[in-house]
Amino acid sequence: MAAIPMAELWRGGMLESTHSGHAVICDETGHIVEAWGDPEAVIFPRSSCKMLQALPLIESGAAQAAGLTDAQLALACASHQGAGLHVGMVTRWLADLGLSEADLRCGAHEPYDRAERDRLICAHEAPCQCHNNCSGKHSGFLTLTKHLKAGPEYVELDHPVQRAVKAAFEEVTDEASPGYGIDGCSAPNFATTVHGLARAMAAFAAAPEGGSARQAAMHRLTRAMAAHPELVAGEGRACTELMRAMDGRVAIKTGAEAVFVAIIPERKMGIALKIVDGGTRASEAAICALLVRLGVLDPDHPATLKRLNAVQKNWRGFETGIVKAAPGFPG
Amino acid sequence: MAAIPMAELWRGGMLESTHSGHAVICDETGHIVEAWGDPEAVIFPRSSCKMLQALPLIESGAAQAAGLTDAQLALACASHQGAGLHVGMVTRWLADLGLSEADLRCGAHEPYDRAERDRLICAHEAPCQCHNNCSGKHSGFLTLTKHLKAGPEYVELDHPVQRAVKAAFEEVTDEASPGYGIDGCSAPNFATTVHGLARAMAAFAAAPEGGSARQAAMHRLTRAMAAHPELVAGEGRACTELMRAMDGRVAIKTGAEAVFVAIIPERKMGIALKIVDGGTRASEAAICALLVRLGVLDPDHPATLKRLNAVQKNWRGFETGIVKAAPGFPG
Repeated sequence: MAAIPMAELWRGGMLESTHSGHAVICDETGHIVEAWGDPEAVIFPRSSCKMLQALPLIESGAAQAAGLTDAQLALACASHQGAGLHVGMVTRWLADLGLSEADLRCGAHEPYDRAERDRLICAHEAPCQCHNNCSGKHSGFLTLTKHLKAGPEYVELDHPVQRAVKAAFEEVTDEASPGYGIDGCSAPNFATTVHGLARAMAAFAAAPEGGSARQAAMHRLTRAMAAHPELVAGEGRACTELMRAMDGRVAIKTGAEAVFVAIIPERKMGIALKIVDGGTRASEAAICALLVRLGVLDPDHPATLKRLNAVQKNWRGFETGIVKAAPGFPG
Repeated sequence: MAAIPMAELWRGGMLESTHSGHAVICDETGHIVEAWGDPEAVIFPRSSCKMLQALPLIESGAAQAAGLTDAQLALACASHQGAGLHVGMVTRWLADLGLSEADLRCGAHEPYDRAERDRLICAHEAPCQCHNNCSGKHSGFLTLTKHLKAGPEYVELDHPVQRAVKAAFEEVTDEASPGYGIDGCSAPNFATTVHGLARAMAAFAAAPEGGSARQAAMHRLTRAMAAHPELVAGEGRACTELMRAMDGRVAIKTGAEAVFVAIIPERKMGIALKIVDGGTRASEAAICALLVRLGVLDPDHPATLKRLNAVQKNWRGFETGIVKAAPGFPG
């Protein structure tokens, strides 16, 4: 099945650009409640699966041994914007492990956070690996590495950390991953279907606090993300603003190349979507449309209206266009 | 006709993202040499039509009266990155007109040029309208405004400047524009078909130096762009690097939302393309593929390989994927 139009940019009353994708809503049994495009399309979840990558951190006992807080677990699931808040937490976390920035393997990039970016520029200071949006996930990987007494190259495919991640990923998506790619942060990123990713999110959504070790881990990660939206992304960003708009009832996560997932405990449902062209504005509009459809996001909330039925303004503040859901999506 | 796949991102040996579009190659008679997708798809050319918007500047005699150089004309056709070079030229141009930055109507945004961006940040200085990537085009509009003794609101649809732009645009595309949108820089942007835009580029390509006033204007603008690639965009950017790679034989221009055009005098041909999702990496890959096909761009030139068959590296320099032309495109 082909991808179907999900989001559009209109200008001057005419369609300017259009984005197509695949999306699945799953229930707690792993069955499809509703799907658009091809539910069996194979995708790279990219950063949308960080909560899956964090499962071994908890299940192994490493998180407990290191005394990780829910805030740290939220940061382990984050694509943060390298604000002082995030960088400070990562720096302290590494110090608590007896490690330092040099032990990270995510690489350095300029932080998305304006204030921190400007501070670095004015100080003629290069960004460090703590600024990498994945440094929380990598701090989690290092916590597990230390717990397992494993070697320092924790992003290698055959490292015990990545072997544990792959096992958890395949178990929760309930699919044998057809392959992997190397992510921006150098960690392996395992492929799955949109259905598999939605199935995993539904498992998180349905996991009771007092269930199995896996369920307990899922329950804790979901609550950690939803309780700390500012750590999962940062001020102004979609994950942060939309989770705040939903008052901690739903955990959501974006991934590069226009993947978005949602964990909805009150419905015991999970969502996964991929815009085939990788356009983030479209994945943000589409996840809003699906969350509105399920009744968990207010279509008129400012965080929603920044992304769905989102008026575009130019440098002088004039309205130039609007980003909308495509006709018939989600229906 | 539907858009056809033109560019793909591969990761770990699997297709991660895909981009579709429409493209037309036209000859000097305005006929289609080859087309992909729907040649009659209506698009906003955005900044790709700046050379069309500059025609009245020359044809009116305003450029000559103001003594504009070819470098200034190249800047009038530019989406520059607000480097010191560009901002300095715009500032002097406005002063020569007896005007200032406050007379611009493009709005201010942070420059794309790193050095100038960092200079502003460290000086706690806000970007001004001269930093806007369209400030050269607007300096051209102001030159024409002054020549016509017209009012200061030169971006309004019924201002003599925009009326002249619309007339030239419709004549050279050989189509009645079905409408307009407001561009990022507040100027009207007239819609046309991909065919109409390619037809206009072919007219530029075929225009002789000693032809009609319009042909002379087209000839001069094409040569001005091709002779000053650093002014049309800036260091590291596609237009600049690819025009350099073609040694001034071809003029090319990108536009927002993934439009790209090319003027190829030696073939008396024009190209226009639009990636429907607005993804710039795909419009850059697709224009490279078409220029290679026409024999005017070396597929192995570093500027080409940055955009077509372009190896993607992550923050640690590891290869993570590749951007390629889609199978069958351009054939």
